[in-house]
Amino acid sequence: MFENKERTSIDQLGEFGLIKHLISAITLETDNTHLGAGDDAAVIKSNGQDVFVSTDTLVENVHFDMMYTPLKHLGFKTVVANISDICAMNVIPGQLTLSLAFSSKYTLEAIEEFYAGVLLACKRYKIDLVGGDICTIPTGLVITGTAMGWGDAEKAVKRSGASAGDLLCVTGDLGGAYMGLQLLEREKRVFLENKEMKPDLGSHDYIVGRQLRPEARIDVIRQLAELNVVPTSMMDISDGLSSEIFHLSEASKVDFSVFEEKLPIDQDTFNMAVEFGIDPTTAALNGGEDYELLFTVSQADYEKIKNHPDITVIGHAKESGMKNELVSKQGNNYALQAQGWQHKGNSDA
Amino acid sequence: MFENKERTSIDQLGEFGLIKHLISAITLETDNTHLGAGDDAAVIKSNGQDVFVSTDTLVENVHFDMMYTPLKHLGFKTVVANISDICAMNVIPGQLTLSLAFSSKYTLEAIEEFYAGVLLACKRYKIDLVGGDICTIPTGLVITGTAMGWGDAEKAVKRSGASAGDLLCVTGDLGGAYMGLQLLEREKRVFLENKEMKPDLGSHDYIVGRQLRPEARIDVIRQLAELNVVPTSMMDISDGLSSEIFHLSEASKVDFSVFEEKLPIDQDTFNMAVEFGIDPTTAALNGGEDYELLFTVSQADYEKIKNHPDITVIGHAKESGMKNELVSKQGNNYALQAQGWQHKGNSDA
Repeated sequence: MFENKERTSIDQLGEFGLIKHLISAITLETDNTHLGAGDDAAVIKSNGQDVFVSTDTLVENVHFDMMYTPLKHLGFKTVVANISDICAMNVIPGQLTLSLAFSSKYTLEAIEEFYAGVLLACKRYKIDLVGGDICTIPTGLVITGTAMGWGDAEKAVKRSGASAGDLLCVTGDLGGAYMGLQLLEREKRVFLENKEMKPDLGSHDYIVGRQLRPEARIDVIRQLAELNVVPTSMMDISDGLSSEIFHLSEASKVDFSVFEEKLPIDQDTFNMAVEFGIDPTTAALNGGEDYELLFTVSQADYEKIKNHPDITVIGHAKESGMKNELVSKQGNNYALQAQGWQHKGNSDA
Repeated sequence: MFENKERTSIDQLGEFGLIKHLISAITLETDNTHLGAGDDAAVIKSNGQDVFVSTDTLVENVHFDMMYTPLKHLGFKTVVANISDICAMNVIPGQLTLSLAFSSKYTLEAIEEFYAGVLLACKRYKIDLVGGDICTIPTGLVITGTAMGWGDAEKAVKRSGASAGDLLCVTGDLGGAYMGLQLLEREKRVFLENKEMKPDLGSHDYIVGRQLRPEARIDVIRQLAELNVVPTSMMDISDGLSSEIFHLSEASKVDFSVFEEKLPIDQDTFNMAVEFGIDPTTAALNGGEDYELLFTVSQADYEKIKNHPDITVIGHAKESGMKNELVSKQGNNYALQAQGWQHKGNSDA
C-alpha cells in the first residue's frame, strides 16, 4: 500500500558509513547531553555524577552461530560486549538493560540458560540487570543490550584525544577470538559432513574461550586509575585492531605507526594461525571480538605502564597525513588497511 | 554440536510469566540501583539527579505490518513507545538509544525515512538520540530503544503505590489505536484480494493516526506537576486498559472498580467499532497501543484534576480480594479479564 520508490542498497555505504550518515542529521535537544552518538558511549550530564550509555546488538548467524555457541556463554558474552563500550570511556559500568527477540525454536530452558550466563557475568562484573523486553520473531535470535556507567563527563576518555607523540597501547593479546572462530567453523563443517563425528577442539581451550566467552577489561580500567594514568584516547577492540586504529586516527586527527614485533599474540593463537595458513599478524590486526582495550597515553606516563603485565605499547601517534602504517619485523613500512572484522553476514555483505 | 535437551515451550508461561520468572533470579550488585526490573522503568540513583531507564522492542509482523505502516510514522511511534514508559514513572524523558536490525529488503531511503520519523519525534518531545547500533538480519525489522529520563528516585511513581479509595484515571481516549488497526487490516485484505483497489481509509484519520502515529503524554506529566498532583501509582497503556489495571492491582495489592459509562471513547472509535460489530467497551478495555497514561490519585486531589480536559476518572481502588470489576451502564458487575492486547504474533501465540 505504501511503497518506497527509491532503492539504494545499504552495501554502498557500509555499516560505519550508514551510521555516520544517520548521525549527521541529529541536533541535540536537551542541555544535559554532553556527548551524543559517535563514540563508544554517549555521556549525559547530571547535577551529580554523569551517566555513560551504550547500545549493542547481537544477531544469530551474524554475530554468533547456535551450532557451537552454548547459550550460557552467549549470555555472558552479551554482557561483555555491552559493558566493554563503557570501559572504553575509562568508566566502570554499573547497569544493563537487555531485550531479547527470539523464534519459537528457543525453549524456556534455552532462554533460562542464556539468562544464567547473563547473570553470571553480572555477578562477575558487578552489573545490575535493570530491565528489558522479551518478544518473539519469525526466525533467529536478536539481542540488544544497553549498558550504563557513572563518572565525570569532563573526564570521559573519547576517541578524539590522541596527540602526535602519544604511545599506542593494547591490553591482553590479539587474534585469539578470531582463531577460535576459525577452529569452531572448521569443526562445524566436519560435523555437518559427518554427524557421527564429535567436534575436536583439542587443547585449544584458550582461543575457543576467547571466541565464546571473552572478558571485559574492567580490571584494566581500575588499574589505570590506581596507576594514576588517564589515557588520552580509548576504544575497545570489537571489530579488529586495524579498524579501531583508523577510528582513533580519524577522531583524533593523528596517524599511527604500529610495530609488528610488538603485537601481543598468544602461542595458541599463533599455532592455530600457522595451522590454518593465516599470517598470525593478519589475525592480530584484523580479527575481531577480542574485547581488549586500545588506548593512547602521553609519553610521560610510559614509566607507569611499562611493567604492567596486561598492557603492551604497540606503536605511537604522529602528525596527521603521514598515514597509518605497520612497521614489519624486517623494518619495512606497509599502509594499514582499515578492513576490520567482517561478521559472517554483516551489513557490508 | 551443543544441544538443549529439555523442551518447554514459552507458550506455557506467556510473555509476562516469562519476564517474571527471569526477573526472579536477579540479585542487585550495585548500591545505586534503586528500582530494578519489573516496573515501567528502572531507577538508578546518582549523587545528583537520578536516572530512569526503560527498554522496548518492536518487531515487524508482530508489532507492525509494513504493508500499511509508513516508515516515518514507525520511527515516530518507536520514540513514543519508548519514552511513554519514562512518562509512566511521572518523569520527563530526555534521551534515547536506538538499535535497528533489518533485512536487505530495507533500502537506504527506507532507513532514512525511519530515522526522519525518529528525529521528528525527538524534536517534538525534546529528546536526544544519543546512540545506537545498526545490523542486518535475515528477515524483517527489529527495533530496540532504550529511553532515559531524569528525576528524583524517591519521587518515582511506581505501579505499587495505589491504596483503597484512590481514584483511577486515564488520559485521552481509549480503543482508537485498536480500531485503527482493524481498519488497516481490513483494507490490507481488500488490497491483497484485488491489487487494483486503492485502500479506503475514508475520513478515519483519527483512529488511523492513533494506530500509526500515537503521541506520548509528556504534556500530562507536565500538567500534573503544575497542578501539584503526584499520582499514587501509574503506568502507560500499551497492552490495553484491562491488562494494565491488573498490573496496578497486583503491584499495589488493591482491586479496582471501573465504570463502563466513564470510559472515554472517541466518536470515530465508537462508530468504527459498531461497523465492525465490536462492542466499543471491549475495544476500550482490550485494545492496546493507545499510549495513554493510567494512574491513581488520592481523593484529596479530585478537585485539582476534575476539570482537566484530558483526564477522566474511570473508577476507584478498593481493598484487595474484592476482584477487579467492570460496572456496566446497566449497573451490573462483571469480573474484568486481564486479557490485554494480543499482538498479531506475540509471544503467547
